Amino acid sequence: MARQATTSVEQWRALARQLRVDSIRSSTRAGSGHPTSALSAADLIAVLAAKYLRYDFDDPANPNNDHLIFSKGHASPLLYALFRAAGAISEEELLSFRRFGSRLQGHPVPVLPWVEVATGSLGQGLAIGVGIALAGRYIDRRPYRVWVLLGDSEMAEGSVWEAFEHASHYQLGNLIGILDLNRLGQRGETMLGWNSGAYAGRARAFGWHTIEIDGHDLDQIDRAYAEASEPRDAPTLIIARTIKGRGVSFLENRDGWHGRALNDEQARQAIEELGGVQTVSVQVAKPSASAAPAPAPPAGWTGRPALPTYALGASVATRRAYGDALRAIGAVRPDLIVLDAEVSNSTYSEEFKKEFPERFFEMYIAEQQMVAAAVGLSVRHLTPFASTFAAFLTRAYDFIRMAAISRANLRLCGSHAGVSIGEDGPSQMALEDLAMMRAVHGSTVLYPCDANQTARLVALMADQDGISFLRTTRAATPVIYPPEEEFTIGGSKTVRSSPDDQVTIVAAGITVHEAIAAADQLAREGIPVRVIDAYSVKPIDRTTLHAAAETTRGRIVVVEDHWAEGGLGAAVQEAFTTNAGWHGRLPLSVTHLAVREMPGSGTPAELLDAAGISARHIASAVRALLRSSDAEKRPDERGARP
Amino acid sequence: MARQATTSVEQWRALARQLRVDSIRSSTRAGSGHPTSALSAADLIAVLAAKYLRYDFDDPANPNNDHLIFSKGHASPLLYALFRAAGAISEEELLSFRRFGSRLQGHPVPVLPWVEVATGSLGQGLAIGVGIALAGRYIDRRPYRVWVLLGDSEMAEGSVWEAFEHASHYQLGNLIGILDLNRLGQRGETMLGWNSGAYAGRARAFGWHTIEIDGHDLDQIDRAYAEASEPRDAPTLIIARTIKGRGVSFLENRDGWHGRALNDEQARQAIEELGGVQTVSVQVAKPSASAAPAPAPPAGWTGRPALPTYALGASVATRRAYGDALRAIGAVRPDLIVLDAEVSNSTYSEEFKKEFPERFFEMYIAEQQMVAAAVGLSVRHLTPFASTFAAFLTRAYDFIRMAAISRANLRLCGSHAGVSIGEDGPSQMALEDLAMMRAVHGSTVLYPCDANQTARLVALMADQDGISFLRTTRAATPVIYPPEEEFTIGGSKTVRSSPDDQVTIVAAGITVHEAIAAADQLAREGIPVRVIDAYSVKPIDRTTLHAAAETTRGRIVVVEDHWAEGGLGAAVQEAFTTNAGWHGRLPLSVTHLAVREMPGSGTPAELLDAAGISARHIASAVRALLRSSDAEKRPDERGARP
Repeated sequence: MARQATTSVEQWRALARQLRVDSIRSSTRAGSGHPTSALSAADLIAVLAAKYLRYDFDDPANPNNDHLIFSKGHASPLLYALFRAAGAISEEELLSFRRFGSRLQGHPVPVLPWVEVATGSLGQGLAIGVGIALAGRYIDRRPYRVWVLLGDSEMAEGSVWEAFEHASHYQLGNLIGILDLNRLGQRGETMLGWNSGAYAGRARAFGWHTIEIDGHDLDQIDRAYAEASEPRDAPTLIIARTIKGRGVSFLENRDGWHGRALNDEQARQAIEELGGVQTVSVQVAKPSASAAPAPAPPAGWTGRPALPTYALGASVATRRAYGDALRAIGAVRPDLIVLDAEVSNSTYSEEFKKEFPERFFEMYIAEQQMVAAAVGLSVRHLTPFASTFAAFLTRAYDFIRMAAISRANLRLCGSHAGVSIGEDGPSQMALEDLAMMRAVHGSTVLYPCDANQTARLVALMADQDGISFLRTTRAATPVIYPPEEEFTIGGSKTVRSSPDDQVTIVAAGITVHEAIAAADQLAREGIPVRVIDAYSVKPIDRTTLHAAAETTRGRIVVVEDHWAEGGLGAAVQEAFTTNAGWHGRLPLSVTHLAVREMPGSGTPAELLDAAGISARHIASAVRALLRSSDAEKRPDERGARP
Repeated sequence: MARQATTSVEQWRALARQLRVDSIRSSTRAGSGHPTSALSAADLIAVLAAKYLRYDFDDPANPNNDHLIFSKGHASPLLYALFRAAGAISEEELLSFRRFGSRLQGHPVPVLPWVEVATGSLGQGLAIGVGIALAGRYIDRRPYRVWVLLGDSEMAEGSVWEAFEHASHYQLGNLIGILDLNRLGQRGETMLGWNSGAYAGRARAFGWHTIEIDGHDLDQIDRAYAEASEPRDAPTLIIARTIKGRGVSFLENRDGWHGRALNDEQARQAIEELGGVQTVSVQVAKPSASAAPAPAPPAGWTGRPALPTYALGASVATRRAYGDALRAIGAVRPDLIVLDAEVSNSTYSEEFKKEFPERFFEMYIAEQQMVAAAVGLSVRHLTPFASTFAAFLTRAYDFIRMAAISRANLRLCGSHAGVSIGEDGPSQMALEDLAMMRAVHGSTVLYPCDANQTARLVALMADQDGISFLRTTRAATPVIYPPEEEFTIGGSKTVRSSPDDQVTIVAAGITVHEAIAAADQLAREGIPVRVIDAYSVKPIDRTTLHAAAETTRGRIVVVEDHWAEGGLGAAVQEAFTTNAGWHGRLPLSVTHLAVREMPGSGTPAELLDAAGISARHIASAVRALLRSSDAEKRPDERGARP
């Protein structure tokens, strides 16, 4: 493809025509996709790429590269057409759009080196852009800009307004939103139609600089980008009135064409209207190399952290150990960034904030924005930890789900887990967080029971790729492990054990202490039981569970401060599938103690007991299992019993 | 308690003093709670209760009652103090605040007859209020107003702005937000502090009428409520500048007092400052009885719906059957209301909309608001169904979680489940929805595999209390059940069965068809297998699973189009706990086929196969189980094999 400079309006026009043609070609070849949503934004992207974007397609890791996020991810044909025009992909690859095995998926994903985050769940791109822009302004201190192409339908998502408020609060002049105001959503007109003044009014009320333009007038687009690029302490929203399907007579501003590819004849006609298949290339400017490198870490900012230690038998909340550990790790890891959703004095992330305020971002009560910002920071190879009450991470589940598709490295901490929080009542109790976080692709789920264990697990999380989640407890609990005890992701600790164990109790977090109390009571009754602290809920320690099941003749009690579905109980049972190497060696009798009725307020002890997960209930479950197997066991087993 | 009229400013002042005193008394007695957040709003609530609220405390079911939602649920001491002043609860009950078994939980829950929805997860009250106001304006057509007390910290939640945009879009003049602008969040100042103009600007930009007042000036409060009560087609936000801890010198506008009860001495001093314990009652006005009753349903709007039927062997998407069934049920159920998040032509809820546009609410791309509106509609005893892509219901997980605490009756449908959606890629694929929805208290989770089954299950959902979820499939799938087939919540269908079955295959939805194909292939190979369609994922049909496990010697293959965690596999395994009546009767060999790698784009068949959940993989898993049990089985078993 012959490269030709594209500096004039005429050349931009040619580029825009080609972007349209290629959007149609790829989606028609695929038989699906969103060509009309690509066509409305083609002029905006043509001018951006030809004159304003600073991006080295040969070096996507260049730290000075601008960032371009298609928040309206369904306009992927346009993005891929740009990649072809920029010489990043071949025509052949362009035409592999949406085919099995192609990097050019239906919505952009970072299997492509020039895509940094997955989009396709609307309302996320701007919030992630806030995270990248925070890095640029406050951490990286690099001159890159963050360009986010927004659809107008997604402006209905509350998460977009979280992004608006945080972007202005943090004075992110390096963030530029480009609103492709094409009026039409999937099934008809949006709430505000072409009322660009309404969008501008909302954006201004949220502290943004706004520019309203005709999104097909290349001069206006040019001037808008120039104005947006001027230094200022406010983010800019360019509100570009556009026409869905622009450039093809039978598509323009028509309902019923969302997410629909043209058939071959329609495509032929459309491409003819657009002037035929073209070979225009765009020379995207590389970023200036003059940007200062990131400041070198001060001396001492390397090596192993001096993790906090807690005396055996002391009473310390795991949430406090989380904060203490963050502070310790932060002292040797300049890449550690901490975010919190206005509860840092409850999650104890304020311990980090006190020491490293310049690496702490207050995200206020906006959990979606908090997670999105962490994803954005991880794009810049930082190591974000984000915390709030575990119950409120449910607010950000779609962002967490998408972060997995983004291959983001995201560390989450949820405090105040379970009924054991006590008097505040069920709205503050996380009882579904283990289920939610386990069902995230490639996630790591950790649930410590003491402070030393917590500190070690936080250190492991800092080195762990993918999405990890730490569940902490509100109440102070006894320290049961010495500071030098080692823990691993995928490990467990057997805290009570003998060769004569009759039943295995599997617990995690707060219930470990209940299980130990039950085991000690049962021991006094002459019933030895094994207690496993399954602090690594995902991946779970199958080997230890299998061995314990063999020893205790398949009798297992699992106890957790969580709804009965999808949490520790499910994790333990999964370990007894053939997938986990278990081949039905012996019958299992599994009793699962979990929260099954809606709790109210009360003391932690009252609520643990009312939920049937206290020491008393665990001991009863053990006795019941033994009674039941006494009654049912086969003759050959009876003889073997000690 | 002597009742005395409270019509003058002086009487309002006395009531406000008592609300403050009682907020302190109850929280000090509890040893926890949020008295300072109650004190800032006491004047606002005193005037509201004394002059503007229309509510019959003796008849909370009165359909003309106003609705009062404490979106800032942590101000519960103020709400309970109001209940005492209104004579609804005794002083003794007031002082049971936060105690185990008390109805007066840390945050309001509808175990109290005067509380309609649970709050405590911030940012939800206004969105639920939108739902009640929609009912009042468009369905009930009653004159009630919806008053929502908002905290300023929660204004950072995007869901609040979803509520703002929908309330103005639907011209909800019957919705009045009261913003308690006390400047201080949990750990410091909010993003906007006391900048009431900024809040007013945002609200106006979102189409609201705004009134800015001093929230401790009773005259200003009075005038603001009067103005807000005037008829208009826009919702009103009263922005009341207040002081956190107002009325107690050592609490006023002080950081560090959020969520902290006074100790006994502090309480004594505070109550003294406030003039001591008082006995003021408030006569809340009852609603006018003159409101017209709801229109009687037209003739024919009773009885059983004429559900759609589909011919055996036809190819019909379950999502289409969902829409068809809604339309049929809507014809006999005037209480049926349908909501969708801008994808009604994908979920097929548009089939209902076409027939009953007056009972369909377009919620645009705002899933949190959609679920909240459904909760609000359920407060008015309507029967809402809300649908979007199942993947995007993750956006509303906190609202669904809270809906369970609200004891709401909420029916959700998520379409486009699993990798089987094909080319659109992972952002659109629900792969965690079963885990998410199972881990909701009291939920029902249904996953039909054919159109007739879908129609029956939708009819069952319409009669089902609590939170129910229907998972539908994008692709057209064969109709395998005759129209007259009956289904039950908690049931299953055994679609292949013989006494000689060697392995049980448990499937649901799209994988039922793969399982049938595998079974037919295996039958040709001389391996009879049982196939169970576990369309009721929660509750699951334990009895059938137990019997099948017995017949097939514990050999089970579970196959699902979902991540491996928390979905059908977990549901099946839970059925084999002692809790479910399974007492380790025989060893189980469970192979779990689920999605374990991040999918991309491709055809449904390619993606099902790549995920290892297609017929080919199911048949292989069956053969592997048989080989492995051949190798491992005990001598007595070997002889018994046919």
